[in-house]
Amino acid sequence: MTKVVVAMSMSLDGIAGPEAADADGMALFTAILGWQFPLRSWRQEQGMDGGEDSVDSRVWADNFARFGPQVIGRTMFDFGYPNWGENPPFHAPVFVVTHRGQDRIPKSGGTSYTFVTSGIAAAVEQARAVADGKDVLLAGGVSIARQALAAGLVDEVVLHVVPKLVGRGVRLFDGGEVDLRCVESIEGEGAVHLRYEVR
Amino acid sequence: MTKVVVAMSMSLDGIAGPEAADADGMALFTAILGWQFPLRSWRQEQGMDGGEDSVDSRVWADNFARFGPQVIGRTMFDFGYPNWGENPPFHAPVFVVTHRGQDRIPKSGGTSYTFVTSGIAAAVEQARAVADGKDVLLAGGVSIARQALAAGLVDEVVLHVVPKLVGRGVRLFDGGEVDLRCVESIEGEGAVHLRYEVR
Repeated sequence: MTKVVVAMSMSLDGIAGPEAADADGMALFTAILGWQFPLRSWRQEQGMDGGEDSVDSRVWADNFARFGPQVIGRTMFDFGYPNWGENPPFHAPVFVVTHRGQDRIPKSGGTSYTFVTSGIAAAVEQARAVADGKDVLLAGGVSIARQALAAGLVDEVVLHVVPKLVGRGVRLFDGGEVDLRCVESIEGEGAVHLRYEVR
Repeated sequence: MTKVVVAMSMSLDGIAGPEAADADGMALFTAILGWQFPLRSWRQEQGMDGGEDSVDSRVWADNFARFGPQVIGRTMFDFGYPNWGENPPFHAPVFVVTHRGQDRIPKSGGTSYTFVTSGIAAAVEQARAVADGKDVLLAGGVSIARQALAAGLVDEVVLHVVPKLVGRGVRLFDGGEVDLRCVESIEGEGAVHLRYEVR
């Protein structure tokens, strides 16, 4: 049974990303996501050799093996698209929730971008339909995570908690009540990895 | 060497307590601190028998054994004082950071309340002076934690993370940058217990 999973990195003060992609925004982005960059498994996804074989790297590899299609937001797409290139790191169908429809964009290595204008529930449904036994990943942005939680679409929340108070930026969670149950905690080198089922 | 430790419960969306002690505030208080109430070790501190002998209870007992003097804020004192009674659960000297000085109040069972009007650093210093090999605990309120972190007085941060998004209330951390290092993570029944050293 395919699960729908929000999985994101967040600081101890609950920040998931910068407000804007300026120089300070990039510094904050690196503070929160930087634990991934040295990992062997993360580098492999990006088509790069080398990197650290660590607890964090194995957690990342397990997640990557588990997830098939992804649902992402328009802001994340617009920011990432030029960098993801012709063989993007998703290696699976990606559904972009947006108000501006456009034709599907196929890429190499299993990635395609499909633009869904009928909302988060429709995007999750389309992702489920092609999941083929894997789980559906919602990895950004913050708005996608909040919308999916508010709509009751989420089965699990995976938090990679980085050991920093950053004091500025966008909170992953800001409003709304959800009861969860912790089903796994793994202490890695660069983050504590907490996995929760939504009750 | 005595360490100064901020130890508090917080929800996954970073909330440490209610805005006010009204009915909704009490519900939120219970949502965040409620994991403690069934614990054998917590009940023992309050002078009550029974309770659950669980991972959470052992974590709580270890913390209690570790900590000597406490530094608390005036709001917490005013709220708690009538409930803590003649044999309060601290069993150690308590230093209350306040603008309104008053005479020291001795209680039974090792607790005394000393009112410090010269700020958080002075209160921590007074607590250190009577620590007798134990560590100094800062367990509330939020303002005390933030002031101590901002002043560079904190050696460790212990977070009891409860598996809930509560969507309202006072954030434990809201501004300021601190780099930490996770030195322990324990998955309990009602909370994940994360221990961090301040770098």
